[in-house]
Amino acid sequence: MVEAVAIVTVDFEPIGRRARVVPGTTVLDAARQAGVGLSAICGGAGTCGACRVRIMAGEVTPPTDSEEAALAEGLRLACQTRVMADVRVDVPPASMTAPQRAQVEGRERVVELDPAVRAVDVALKPASLDDLRADSTRLCEALRLEHGVAVDGFDGLVLRQLPATLRENDWRLRSVVRNGEVVAVMRDGSSSLGLAVDVGTTKLAAYLIDLENGETLGAAGVMNPQIAYGEDVMARITYAMQGESQAQELHQVVIAGLDEVAQQLCVGAGREPREIVEAVIVGNTCMHHLVVGLPVAQLGLAPYVAVLGESYDIKARDLGLHLAPGAYVHLLPNIAGFVGADHVSMVLATRLHETDEITVGLDIGTNTEISLAAGGRLLSCSCASGPAFEGAHIHDGMRAAPGAVERIRAIDGRIVYQTIDGAPPVGICGSGILDGVAELRRIGVVRPNGAMNMDSHPRVRRSDGRREFLLVPEGERDAPHDVVITRKDINEIQLAKAAIRAGIEVLLSEAGCRAEQLDRVVVAGAFGTYLDVDSAVAVGMFPPLPHERFLQVGNAAGIGAKLTLVSQRCRTTAQEIAQRMEYVELTTHPRFVEIYAESLMLP
Amino acid sequence: MVEAVAIVTVDFEPIGRRARVVPGTTVLDAARQAGVGLSAICGGAGTCGACRVRIMAGEVTPPTDSEEAALAEGLRLACQTRVMADVRVDVPPASMTAPQRAQVEGRERVVELDPAVRAVDVALKPASLDDLRADSTRLCEALRLEHGVAVDGFDGLVLRQLPATLRENDWRLRSVVRNGEVVAVMRDGSSSLGLAVDVGTTKLAAYLIDLENGETLGAAGVMNPQIAYGEDVMARITYAMQGESQAQELHQVVIAGLDEVAQQLCVGAGREPREIVEAVIVGNTCMHHLVVGLPVAQLGLAPYVAVLGESYDIKARDLGLHLAPGAYVHLLPNIAGFVGADHVSMVLATRLHETDEITVGLDIGTNTEISLAAGGRLLSCSCASGPAFEGAHIHDGMRAAPGAVERIRAIDGRIVYQTIDGAPPVGICGSGILDGVAELRRIGVVRPNGAMNMDSHPRVRRSDGRREFLLVPEGERDAPHDVVITRKDINEIQLAKAAIRAGIEVLLSEAGCRAEQLDRVVVAGAFGTYLDVDSAVAVGMFPPLPHERFLQVGNAAGIGAKLTLVSQRCRTTAQEIAQRMEYVELTTHPRFVEIYAESLMLP
Repeated sequence: MVEAVAIVTVDFEPIGRRARVVPGTTVLDAARQAGVGLSAICGGAGTCGACRVRIMAGEVTPPTDSEEAALAEGLRLACQTRVMADVRVDVPPASMTAPQRAQVEGRERVVELDPAVRAVDVALKPASLDDLRADSTRLCEALRLEHGVAVDGFDGLVLRQLPATLRENDWRLRSVVRNGEVVAVMRDGSSSLGLAVDVGTTKLAAYLIDLENGETLGAAGVMNPQIAYGEDVMARITYAMQGESQAQELHQVVIAGLDEVAQQLCVGAGREPREIVEAVIVGNTCMHHLVVGLPVAQLGLAPYVAVLGESYDIKARDLGLHLAPGAYVHLLPNIAGFVGADHVSMVLATRLHETDEITVGLDIGTNTEISLAAGGRLLSCSCASGPAFEGAHIHDGMRAAPGAVERIRAIDGRIVYQTIDGAPPVGICGSGILDGVAELRRIGVVRPNGAMNMDSHPRVRRSDGRREFLLVPEGERDAPHDVVITRKDINEIQLAKAAIRAGIEVLLSEAGCRAEQLDRVVVAGAFGTYLDVDSAVAVGMFPPLPHERFLQVGNAAGIGAKLTLVSQRCRTTAQEIAQRMEYVELTTHPRFVEIYAESLMLP
Repeated sequence: MVEAVAIVTVDFEPIGRRARVVPGTTVLDAARQAGVGLSAICGGAGTCGACRVRIMAGEVTPPTDSEEAALAEGLRLACQTRVMADVRVDVPPASMTAPQRAQVEGRERVVELDPAVRAVDVALKPASLDDLRADSTRLCEALRLEHGVAVDGFDGLVLRQLPATLRENDWRLRSVVRNGEVVAVMRDGSSSLGLAVDVGTTKLAAYLIDLENGETLGAAGVMNPQIAYGEDVMARITYAMQGESQAQELHQVVIAGLDEVAQQLCVGAGREPREIVEAVIVGNTCMHHLVVGLPVAQLGLAPYVAVLGESYDIKARDLGLHLAPGAYVHLLPNIAGFVGADHVSMVLATRLHETDEITVGLDIGTNTEISLAAGGRLLSCSCASGPAFEGAHIHDGMRAAPGAVERIRAIDGRIVYQTIDGAPPVGICGSGILDGVAELRRIGVVRPNGAMNMDSHPRVRRSDGRREFLLVPEGERDAPHDVVITRKDINEIQLAKAAIRAGIEVLLSEAGCRAEQLDRVVVAGAFGTYLDVDSAVAVGMFPPLPHERFLQVGNAAGIGAKLTLVSQRCRTTAQEIAQRMEYVELTTHPRFVEIYAESLMLP
């Protein structure tokens, strides 16, 4: 007996992808299924308004109350709209999460090549009636006697390949040994590859490394496909907490993303993912847990403790990754629920753990992780800086995509700006809004408390009873609509920058230092690379130090992943960093609220 | 679009199972799918005639040439008959592989309890804003500081359970640690279980052990479900060599059998398979490889070397076994392609490796493995004794199932016999045919060369021009047909016993001993337990030693599996046995053929 199940199609334009779903599915779920990267900052709750789409044809459910704003533009919210028959959906560029700038550079360090895996070419005596040793015994003895490599175990899948590999290659092969275990066998002479990935909440930055010489064969940055489930860590946790299958889904999509970026890197280098015999993954604690498939519920509830603190080795296949059959993934240790392996990796890459200078290192995001090296101590904290620098909660905010205003200067009262890729301006990204607030404060449009002086500039105007600054009038450089900076936008930046500054000050006070004693401020990560340090100082996010004490280092977490891929010693160091690190919990710190309040003002 | 696929049903009677298959499927394949244990000694080649069935109703393909003998009885060969429509099939008891006698007893040894896993109850301090350690760190530190247990890793699946297990049990739990790895977490106070299995070509003998006190909670013997793919090792290898999916099939059915016996034991003990945190599996090299999922092709081709020699630890889940999520399976080492882990286990259990007496230990089967301890040396060989003792190639041969003649004595010229379970005689099993040959030789019916004296006994008769001995006339004790011993049957036993005797003699000659110096002959395994030692001596299978020098020890391989389950020291010993053992290859041994020829005569 065959049961009939109705299936409808959802076509996404202009991207040209199709989903086949049952009636009643939301357009957002259909987009996820089709691999269409629709923004969904709130994770599908109908509150952020990011997933606006246009229904071109077909039957959908009537609008809900939360779609009022979208409807005014002739649009619908994908998370609220359910398909009832075949539909065609137009996705405006502003609702797409991709393309985005890649973030894979970073300042390299040179370390001694000492990877966890060692590849050895061996030539074995063929089995005969006079030499009946098992294949495993034959290989172990050759490795021990001819190469001094001790083997005490075999990966199960490698064992299954061993007899054919030996016999098809005339009893010669390359074996890859890791901590006494044979994790790969292949034709002799082939080089073995490593993969290092920084799994960010927004992006995956990945590197393909030749483990024989440490050379970087390729670097790639792709969106974290989890973005479709909410843009920040809390939205992901909330989604995962809905149930086992949702948690599994988040695990599986990030693994699929990792597989895809590995594939992409290998294609670029003329290699194959099954040649990757070792990988290192770093990420914040939530990304780390979702990659490993660990529960994240406890990261969303006080006291926010991690499931796993220590560095961790797990077979790539146990994560569902398609690398060499016996390959391991090494994950760096986490410090706390909101100071993860990516921060350890950043500290390692920037040598905060071994500097004699008083140094702050920070990675700015929805959560900003900050470490302070002072007097032989390492202290860290995490502050909830919010998503303003990602463009969220900002009236015309957007991520660092083409058309985003990324630089703003007021020159003789005239506003000049630059957009990403020189595209027509459609919104403002994090570095743009930071510049905007700094410049508007500098020319006196904005007061220290964030309020706007009505007559300070011809572009200041009222809208719905609130003041705003018209940054880009509709039509200027083909702008499709006005781009403004509102009073509320300025307040959002005040909250964000105050949280970061308070984190820095609390750590300094714990170490008994003052801000002016800081020798160096190391700013890592994507936003940290693009922001204008002078603007950051101007708004008070950073202490007022000379320009030359700031160092923007790019994706230091990714560099740390590369270092720990090629150096066992760096892995040991990473574990030592995590153990040494004194974590300071801001929410219960006696001085945090006071310092935070002081930091809200614009200097 | 829906494609229509015709499906037909095959009902098996009297067992009452049904398969749903596509038309054209053989009845044998349908039986495998339905889990009906049809005999198929040749593996489905149409040559052994074991899989006879009666087609009660429905359309099947016309008989093939190889079915002539079966047709004469109104039967068909399941391997040659393809179903074309719904059919009903009657399976005669003689064509079934089950039920069989269980073989799970054996002489126990007492060893110090020292299993590879250690279970520890811990009570943790709950996480709080003042104590933000990760769950893993919290557990590791408690294990180290409070119990002196060092932990350097977590099973991935155990980590996934850890947060909920902790929080649902008020931060108390039992953790099971193996070699520094946490392999299970459970409610505190629950005891942990172990599983020991001897995977025989025919049967699985399994034991459920309480690892906290070493107590055997249950023992079970079930058929090896691979039996449907051929009764001996070579048939399985041949089947596996047909392709990757066939090899996988053999792997999967034995794993399913292991899961089933584990389930059965747990139900009997009021426990659950997920409480089994450690398992030991022994088996001959082919069974070992099929359990692990290793290729077996090379075991079927000279020089017959194993893929894996050393003892081996692998996650149960990587084998597809459903025990505790993080449980390991330990497999004992193999000595050679035809002297496997079960023989090592038997040597360990019978202490051959530490005896000062000159001792032979042997396990008789289609392949008979023999070890000799003499002068501090351990030597072993494998001889191709063939399937005669399993009832194959014997005119009325059958396995040790109800109705098999298992004991024969000639008393004053009158033949008396005993059948298994006292059932009506339908055939002769291994111990019966051995007795029969011994007794017929003793009373002068059979000459030393195996020929029958025509007038030596009234039951000697001619059939198709060849002589045979009428053991059971049709109708006697409700026998459904005559049961005879043919001249050819006697020759089969001569070939089998000569191979075994020659193996013993070659080992003795290698050690510089003579047979009469043997202090002890240890006979293990199912057939070894049921055979009559005096008959075995009478036909010359064993050297003519006093009765008391023979010791029948039951399933010693199973005992060895239990020992290595509860004692790490025994695992080390097993590895030492495998390393010390000098394997003697009979096929190339200069004296084997000569000794074999000498051994063919009946004394």
